[in-house]
Amino acid sequence: MSLDPARLAPMANAIRALSMDAVQAANIGHPGMPMGMADVATVLWSEFLKFDPADPKWPDRDRFVLSAGHGSMLIYALLHLTGYERPTMDDIRNFRQLGSPCAGHPENFLLDGVEATTGPLGQGLAMAVGMAIAERHLNAKFGDDLVDHHTWVVAGDGCLMEGINHEAIGLAGHLGLGRLIVLWDDNDVTIDGHTDLSTSEDIPARYRATGWHTVACDGHDPADIRRALAEAKADPRPSLVACKTVIGKGAPNKQGTSAVHGNPLGADEIAAARVYLKWDAPAFEIPADIMVDWRSLGAKGAEANRAWQGRLGGNALKDEFEGQLSEIASLAPPILEPHIAALAKDPPKVASRKASEMALEPLTQQLPQLIGGSADLTGSNNTKTSSTKPFSKNDYSGRYLYYGIREFGMAAAMNGMALHGGVVPYGGTFLVFSDYCRNAIRLSALQQVRVVYVLTHDSIGLGEDGPTHQPIEHVMSLRLIPNLNVFRPADAIETAECWALALGTPKTPSVLSLTRQNLPPVRTDGGAENRSARGAYRLRAATAERKVVIMATGSEVHVAIACAEQLESEGIGADVVSMPCMELFEAQDEAFRRDLLPADTLKVSVEAGVTLGWDRFIGNDGLAIGLDRFGASAPAEVLFRHFGFSAEAIVPKIKDKLAV
Amino acid sequence: MSLDPARLAPMANAIRALSMDAVQAANIGHPGMPMGMADVATVLWSEFLKFDPADPKWPDRDRFVLSAGHGSMLIYALLHLTGYERPTMDDIRNFRQLGSPCAGHPENFLLDGVEATTGPLGQGLAMAVGMAIAERHLNAKFGDDLVDHHTWVVAGDGCLMEGINHEAIGLAGHLGLGRLIVLWDDNDVTIDGHTDLSTSEDIPARYRATGWHTVACDGHDPADIRRALAEAKADPRPSLVACKTVIGKGAPNKQGTSAVHGNPLGADEIAAARVYLKWDAPAFEIPADIMVDWRSLGAKGAEANRAWQGRLGGNALKDEFEGQLSEIASLAPPILEPHIAALAKDPPKVASRKASEMALEPLTQQLPQLIGGSADLTGSNNTKTSSTKPFSKNDYSGRYLYYGIREFGMAAAMNGMALHGGVVPYGGTFLVFSDYCRNAIRLSALQQVRVVYVLTHDSIGLGEDGPTHQPIEHVMSLRLIPNLNVFRPADAIETAECWALALGTPKTPSVLSLTRQNLPPVRTDGGAENRSARGAYRLRAATAERKVVIMATGSEVHVAIACAEQLESEGIGADVVSMPCMELFEAQDEAFRRDLLPADTLKVSVEAGVTLGWDRFIGNDGLAIGLDRFGASAPAEVLFRHFGFSAEAIVPKIKDKLAV
Repeated sequence: MSLDPARLAPMANAIRALSMDAVQAANIGHPGMPMGMADVATVLWSEFLKFDPADPKWPDRDRFVLSAGHGSMLIYALLHLTGYERPTMDDIRNFRQLGSPCAGHPENFLLDGVEATTGPLGQGLAMAVGMAIAERHLNAKFGDDLVDHHTWVVAGDGCLMEGINHEAIGLAGHLGLGRLIVLWDDNDVTIDGHTDLSTSEDIPARYRATGWHTVACDGHDPADIRRALAEAKADPRPSLVACKTVIGKGAPNKQGTSAVHGNPLGADEIAAARVYLKWDAPAFEIPADIMVDWRSLGAKGAEANRAWQGRLGGNALKDEFEGQLSEIASLAPPILEPHIAALAKDPPKVASRKASEMALEPLTQQLPQLIGGSADLTGSNNTKTSSTKPFSKNDYSGRYLYYGIREFGMAAAMNGMALHGGVVPYGGTFLVFSDYCRNAIRLSALQQVRVVYVLTHDSIGLGEDGPTHQPIEHVMSLRLIPNLNVFRPADAIETAECWALALGTPKTPSVLSLTRQNLPPVRTDGGAENRSARGAYRLRAATAERKVVIMATGSEVHVAIACAEQLESEGIGADVVSMPCMELFEAQDEAFRRDLLPADTLKVSVEAGVTLGWDRFIGNDGLAIGLDRFGASAPAEVLFRHFGFSAEAIVPKIKDKLAV
Repeated sequence: MSLDPARLAPMANAIRALSMDAVQAANIGHPGMPMGMADVATVLWSEFLKFDPADPKWPDRDRFVLSAGHGSMLIYALLHLTGYERPTMDDIRNFRQLGSPCAGHPENFLLDGVEATTGPLGQGLAMAVGMAIAERHLNAKFGDDLVDHHTWVVAGDGCLMEGINHEAIGLAGHLGLGRLIVLWDDNDVTIDGHTDLSTSEDIPARYRATGWHTVACDGHDPADIRRALAEAKADPRPSLVACKTVIGKGAPNKQGTSAVHGNPLGADEIAAARVYLKWDAPAFEIPADIMVDWRSLGAKGAEANRAWQGRLGGNALKDEFEGQLSEIASLAPPILEPHIAALAKDPPKVASRKASEMALEPLTQQLPQLIGGSADLTGSNNTKTSSTKPFSKNDYSGRYLYYGIREFGMAAAMNGMALHGGVVPYGGTFLVFSDYCRNAIRLSALQQVRVVYVLTHDSIGLGEDGPTHQPIEHVMSLRLIPNLNVFRPADAIETAECWALALGTPKTPSVLSLTRQNLPPVRTDGGAENRSARGAYRLRAATAERKVVIMATGSEVHVAIACAEQLESEGIGADVVSMPCMELFEAQDEAFRRDLLPADTLKVSVEAGVTLGWDRFIGNDGLAIGLDRFGASAPAEVLFRHFGFSAEAIVPKIKDKLAV
């Protein structure tokens, strides 16, 4: 259905007016993109996008992702104009002020209709790939009647220059995600100036080289935009629509220059724009007839939603569909109970990456929501299970993604899947390459989505690959990210407990830091009580009078036990505290923490990584056993000995501290 | 000059034999790539590469970068065979053992001839772009007689799938770096299996879309390889040579499969390979005639080097050339002395990013080695000075790079420039986007190169852009990287001091963490003594009896002063310690540290970031004022107030702790 072109122009100008006025009121922001893309957005939202402002979480809605997140006023204007409950006009008046949901960049946790937090360039596009994956997977399971939507992305030159866009489109092209359509705001301008300062790429040719369909249009001609979007929608491949636009379109003296990218237009230019656009309404007011046109779109969406609800009601898969979309937080522990009980009977000596695979077997078997994958390290990360078949262009029902050597693309895609809903993603790489996807891990945390990062080869214990591959600072540096739980389990039972905890936090992502090398079991109990749940626990109590508490994580817990045993044999009482999750331990009350780490004993930390951060737990006069330098290339056992992670090396240091 | 093809095959087989034998001896490693690329490498090193084993640091040598660093035995074999002093055959026998320079992945600090540490995929290629930039820049200054070399890269499918390769080739294509030639080991295999599991990209088409020349060859046919390399060398554009190879070529039963990528062949397959390759020599022995052929190449290089030395001797620019290549560590402080003296006379209230620009003015004016740039945030990072003209395809003499929106590509390119020598790179982005280039920052540190990261907008003080753009964990997480100095200066004088320190460490990279917002001056002295040099210093001594020491960094130092003033006004003595560099402070002796942070006072840290890490300095009963959550979108001053970074909020907490 095409709207009268004469009515589209004022609708688009409403976006322009709100954008320039809100940025001006805040005296900071980015008017260029929303003004430049106003015409494209108006055609998209009025004629293509499937959405229902009254039901923002409608599962079969189209997803709209503003990858060029600095142009946040575009989405705020669209949400307000089409009748979402928020943002109100007052919210928009308070653009970029404390308490307003209209933050500088769109935040998914502040506004319905903002499908993803964007701003870090390229990631919106890469998250959209994950949304498109989730859509095809659910479609393969539940059919067109229940799952049949598109993912639309607005991306700027910045998004398309970032490396992550290469990873994202490579994945999307390979997987044939035809319902993914990227609208490129092709305006030739970046912050530093004209794009020819820094790039001379034929972007559409690059997209075609990765299996994409491309089409171009005049981003200010509604008929041409409509033609291009229709062509993109019809093509079975993912599509790039190059929308040739003038940045800041409507600001007669500044449009087309980098000056409008990230600065308020100023009162004079706004006045000139009002004349140029024939926009008579005062700031933050929308003429009633234009508002009626915008709001009519909402009604159209409600109708589509009602039809979908009808189809759902009569669908044989209704219960299964609703089950797939329901919360799984409480399901993981009971699934893992028999697994842990079996481990407790016959504790295996395995690497924690292998223990993770063992826990994933029952989890993936019983939780159809789980979708696994790895960035080309499937056999090393142990992420594939017997019940997860490959997800491929020819079989979207699969639940295992071969992400390729694309760590950042993988992490962002997992964020997109989690945001889409109906699936719970986990994916693997080496811990050291968390560096490659670190900002996506941060966005998991900021966006409050449950993504589980399976990060293996988590210390010098990976051995011969050497310092480029040996994490030193990574475990601690991931702990620094707010709202992220970093688990470093000590054996197979703790690994299963940590998996249960990771799946139990719908609003907090998790990292599982896992070993390459085999670990002796440190636990023979488990099942009913998840001892890892409070982050740390007393694994071994002193028998002689307690003089020291040795806390350790992961592969160093068994070293701590060896230290304690040697100390006890010399009459020095030693507790061992296993601390699989520092964050959860920190969240406990003081009494619990004091009980585990009492003030009157020497406290020692043992972790094969940087020591900064452990001072909080060992205190002024404690002892931190760690590694504050890069590693080396040698077999794991040689390195652990060389760098002093052994009872032989540690016990004398403890005795020295105790002055015994 | 073409070698007799009949002699090339055994030369290549020498690489294969050493690779399979060394991996077998270590019982871990990657034989597939060196065996697959042995023929290509033999043609390259025998007929194209300019090198002199007796003078590995010859400035005009070609650079050879093994971006697919897991194939490290390829470079170790080549260095040994062509007569570099190291690795010896014993070094190769001890491949991947503690103490051998033949580490799992090539390490530039362990072996001459290893131009870059590689292994983290894609970064070798991206560093090579930096080397090619440095070559063209020095060529523009000193002409073909002195600077006229190529940069050759061996890259695998993994390198070309990583996002960073997109950024790197975009930059190289745009800058027309025709002396950069990438040899793609096109073997259709990754760790997870056939490349068609995860990609269906037309890689040459993508390279052509970014302005590259591409050519293909049979990677096992010397004549065809020669043709392709010659064509690549002749073409004025950067070149991708697609070398169609069989991974593990020579292992008759396993070649062409992912089994040879990262596993020893096993004794049986090695025996079969010896038969297949007609290689009779025992493990770690090279037949004399083959060794003679290899070693003759070294002599050829010595001749070219002598000719170059002759040209240098007679060149009018000899002194300037040698000056450009000399060490600058001692030059920065005297350059900055008058600048600091001027600041001390009239201390300005400026953002530290602006103060950085002010320091860069005299530095770039007097140090021709400095090459600046920014990832599309020039005006925000304040990285461009009046003496740094743009470096562009049309003018390689320029010293300012518009890197585009390519943080990771920029950081890796800077590593490459620093490794190349003759230039000292610095580059800017927002601190939060250090996440995007974190592993390249790590590689600066591991490779021991002086790169200066100008990371601005370093806290919630950036204000309205909100949580995606507000660093919280970044300063502390960068401090965790070994051999990296993180500077967070408090005002213009400290900023200049930190610049002097950053340029003074040839083997340690630096981060300058700088504010967006203006900062009141906290210093009125400076020049002769660099007070930041020991990492921390007493900025303000208590006048009343000292009860508390408030330590702070960067934009929070003036807050600490306000706290101290208020406390003093109430008769509570308070020191203020400014700590612009935690790492340098940690390196001081205990007496110095105890003097600044005495045991018998309350110690308080104030930093607008995570508190974990500060416990080391505040001790058991200290007080850490920080931010352990994501920020928000609002004006900076609102946020600082909201999150409690003010004397009003902090002083009561201090008094509470003091129980006064």
